[in-house]
Amino acid sequence: MSRRSPIKTIHSHCHHLGWDNSHAPTARIEPGSTLELQCLDAGNGHFRPDSTADTVRSLAADRANPLTGPVFVDGAEPGDILAVTLDSFAPSGFGWTAIIPGFGLLADQFSRPALQLWSYDREVQAPAAFGTYARIPLRPFAGTLGVAPAAPGNHSVIPPRRVGGNLDTRDLCAGSTLYLPVEVAGALFSIGDTHAAQGDGEVCGTAIESAMNVTVKLDLIKQTPLAMPRFSTAGPVTRHIDGAGYDVFTGVGPDLLQAARDAVSGAIDWLTATQRVPAEQAYMLCSVCGDLRVTEIVDLPNVVVAFYMPRMVFD
Amino acid sequence: MSRRSPIKTIHSHCHHLGWDNSHAPTARIEPGSTLELQCLDAGNGHFRPDSTADTVRSLAADRANPLTGPVFVDGAEPGDILAVTLDSFAPSGFGWTAIIPGFGLLADQFSRPALQLWSYDREVQAPAAFGTYARIPLRPFAGTLGVAPAAPGNHSVIPPRRVGGNLDTRDLCAGSTLYLPVEVAGALFSIGDTHAAQGDGEVCGTAIESAMNVTVKLDLIKQTPLAMPRFSTAGPVTRHIDGAGYDVFTGVGPDLLQAARDAVSGAIDWLTATQRVPAEQAYMLCSVCGDLRVTEIVDLPNVVVAFYMPRMVFD
Repeated sequence: MSRRSPIKTIHSHCHHLGWDNSHAPTARIEPGSTLELQCLDAGNGHFRPDSTADTVRSLAADRANPLTGPVFVDGAEPGDILAVTLDSFAPSGFGWTAIIPGFGLLADQFSRPALQLWSYDREVQAPAAFGTYARIPLRPFAGTLGVAPAAPGNHSVIPPRRVGGNLDTRDLCAGSTLYLPVEVAGALFSIGDTHAAQGDGEVCGTAIESAMNVTVKLDLIKQTPLAMPRFSTAGPVTRHIDGAGYDVFTGVGPDLLQAARDAVSGAIDWLTATQRVPAEQAYMLCSVCGDLRVTEIVDLPNVVVAFYMPRMVFD
Repeated sequence: MSRRSPIKTIHSHCHHLGWDNSHAPTARIEPGSTLELQCLDAGNGHFRPDSTADTVRSLAADRANPLTGPVFVDGAEPGDILAVTLDSFAPSGFGWTAIIPGFGLLADQFSRPALQLWSYDREVQAPAAFGTYARIPLRPFAGTLGVAPAAPGNHSVIPPRRVGGNLDTRDLCAGSTLYLPVEVAGALFSIGDTHAAQGDGEVCGTAIESAMNVTVKLDLIKQTPLAMPRFSTAGPVTRHIDGAGYDVFTGVGPDLLQAARDAVSGAIDWLTATQRVPAEQAYMLCSVCGDLRVTEIVDLPNVVVAFYMPRMVFD
């Protein structure tokens, strides 16, 4: 990707909670402009280097996932597409991963809070140590990025939507371009929930959550239909983590969600038995580096969901 | 992987239809043995180089997906794991992909039969031409491989099960080892439904279906619990196809199946509009090379399913 000089910086105090098309813009730009947005972490600064699992209990849901923005793009109208090119990510060097009771794919099996803190070199971005269990290759991206929905009022930041939002999609990293359907004048683009690493699925509900500064270019494609978000990647998407191959765990059955749960449960069973990772740490490890794939969806009544655990993290 | 000399060849006339633990073994081997199994294609020889879309109409469901075997593994007992190491695949050079009415992720949208025939060099295995639309890198694997279920009677070959079967999982290719729970004495291993290429999901219901000879090693792991099939890969799994990156289409919503349908529909819309591939060919193209991934499964009520279309096929 090219590294462009941002025309403007939006600081992290210019953030909002939830999506609401009545939020006042923090900046107004021409299409084609590049800008830097400074993003808080999804915990809104709640976690610090001395935090413990107990700190998870006081995490305030109504302050979670602050988004920097919104940015008004001149000329954007409903029916346009906003093209968001992700130029670069500058992460903070500090991160956290948590099991938050009631949240996550296996919330019924993991009811206690747990916390893993991460420290990594923000320049070198070498793989980050998960205790003595594993080392996680980093690839920063934005978990939440989107435009304001047409429907009035304040909408929860948690679920992703047609207009983007909390997509938590690992490959929305530097070099990718995300295409979003514009629903309101000016588009009202916001971004946050930055992650230093995550696997597809984000199965425990959190990634390596890290504050970071993001440089993006915002373009318009006028009056072009787009039902759902799409994106293009600059190149391969798993080469930072696939070099040693995978151990893969399947769920086979009539329901995709239960198959996904069975696949991740199989991975956790194997991590505890074979790699001697305690169950809570295994669940968080799955979330920060393992990938959930649908390998078969047509041989009804059963589907196959597979969870791919990269062996590289144990080298 | 190592290339071992098979101790025995099981010819393709030694096949069965459906899974039934009363099928007489076609061979009896010691654990640790390597053998070659000659597999018919999933259409049981129905398609030939002069077949047309009309030929799909006469495909007989009760003759589909013949499996070579079963192989009785000495000493295998319920509670053991059968470890199936896939040594090599020798494909026929001829293949087919079809839209079979009533079958496939978008069966409601594609009700007419369609057929794509493939011809490729069985030795070189260079990417296979899909008309003038795309060239598909090949990576042969077995769509169906499993052991006999404990439940008596004949069970349909179509749905995959805990004991394996029609897993249609793209990475069960040369070098991978599949671990299956044994439910009956001798395990009764069978294999078939060989594919020259497929994407994760096999979304139209068929891959590049090709007869081929498969060399496997069968080992036993005694009395070890295994809830669902698992496998290990020898190395990276997408490097044959990811070099040029991906165009990615998402489905966002409360239901995983509908999100998957929306993601594939988005890909087909884009292929018809941008790459000028007719819709039926686009659907088959998705099936033979695109990957279905669950990129977010925790931000309820909505999930994100993404369909990854590799750009390399258009180069």
